[in-house]
Amino acid sequence: MNPRGLFITVEGGEGVGKSTNIAYIRQQLEAAGTELVVTREPGGTPLGEELRDVLLGVRDTGISAMAELLLIFAARAQHIEEVIEPALEAGKWVVCDRFTDATYAYQCGGRGLSFETVAVLEKLVQGDLLPDYTLLLDAPVDTGMSRVQGRGEPDRFEREELAFFERVRGTYHQLAEASSGRYRVIDASQPLPAVQQQLLQVCNELITCWRVRHQQP
Amino acid sequence: MNPRGLFITVEGGEGVGKSTNIAYIRQQLEAAGTELVVTREPGGTPLGEELRDVLLGVRDTGISAMAELLLIFAARAQHIEEVIEPALEAGKWVVCDRFTDATYAYQCGGRGLSFETVAVLEKLVQGDLLPDYTLLLDAPVDTGMSRVQGRGEPDRFEREELAFFERVRGTYHQLAEASSGRYRVIDASQPLPAVQQQLLQVCNELITCWRVRHQQP
Repeated sequence: MNPRGLFITVEGGEGVGKSTNIAYIRQQLEAAGTELVVTREPGGTPLGEELRDVLLGVRDTGISAMAELLLIFAARAQHIEEVIEPALEAGKWVVCDRFTDATYAYQCGGRGLSFETVAVLEKLVQGDLLPDYTLLLDAPVDTGMSRVQGRGEPDRFEREELAFFERVRGTYHQLAEASSGRYRVIDASQPLPAVQQQLLQVCNELITCWRVRHQQP
Repeated sequence: MNPRGLFITVEGGEGVGKSTNIAYIRQQLEAAGTELVVTREPGGTPLGEELRDVLLGVRDTGISAMAELLLIFAARAQHIEEVIEPALEAGKWVVCDRFTDATYAYQCGGRGLSFETVAVLEKLVQGDLLPDYTLLLDAPVDTGMSRVQGRGEPDRFEREELAFFERVRGTYHQLAEASSGRYRVIDASQPLPAVQQQLLQVCNELITCWRVRHQQP
């Protein structure tokens, strides 16, 4: 039986280069011989992708902060049961583009819901499941937003004002400080080669940690 | 300022005649001069109706019991904020075709989730909001199912086996016993005129109670 896989989440605000950098992380980890599942939130399952459309779509009719939060956790419940847990159980590593830390950052920091409310749902839906490592791609809000601008129609979140994203970034910093053991903060404002140099170090740390933990030479 | 309206929910399994009987209740209450909002769950708002389609649609891909539960409460959070609370605040009466008791009946009784799990979400989403009165249209499962059979393609719930609906009915009975103060149980297995005779009595009770409470002659 394979030992349980590592659960790695990648977090960050708009325009910090998550897609490009997740592709790079995948390349490094696969080169080291890990079996990898790369997925995203909201999404990652057929139900989750339907709910992603509901959540990100620009709409005339309302979604209250509480309804939004519950939709995110509905998608997450399905994602955990259908994808994340079976992969980890089978010994695969899971790299997930955003997870519950994004909910604290966007729905608490951004929308003003309480940390306690999210913690109740986190416990209900995840039980004891937490990421083993969280890579925070961090960049000043105006740097990120200027990168997003060329991408076409902004989604329902990208339409928020700058202060919203400042609060999101501030909350990520709080989380990184509170959970410094699992967080690795990457300065994503640097040019791509310098960002990848930082990511390479983290990937090597993950692989070493994994080998030591499982006593593979 | 108007006194707060009454919140009335109508519950029951498949084929107990909810639509027909809610139309009759509306007629009686409006004739007595109440201003009424008639609505339904899941649904009642544009977001809620989208989620109703997700929940009831027959699908190839999975919805876990927990994801289903969170979707129901997401729709409910929007419904309360957008429709139910504003109406009650404005002094209107709200008649809602299914509410949280249906969640206990279907998701706990039917699917096997714990009452505690639903209670956590109920508290989070509803705070202190509870129905003032709940009318349970009760009929043996086989009576109800035979009425449903002529209706065309069964939805994702109607496809469940008989034992599922027996557990749903059993849970409704438990709830009615535990909350006998707000529950009025209607024998919906009788012919329509006899059912409406029972409903008329309950409607008169509601109106009398309301008038006494607000000291209107």
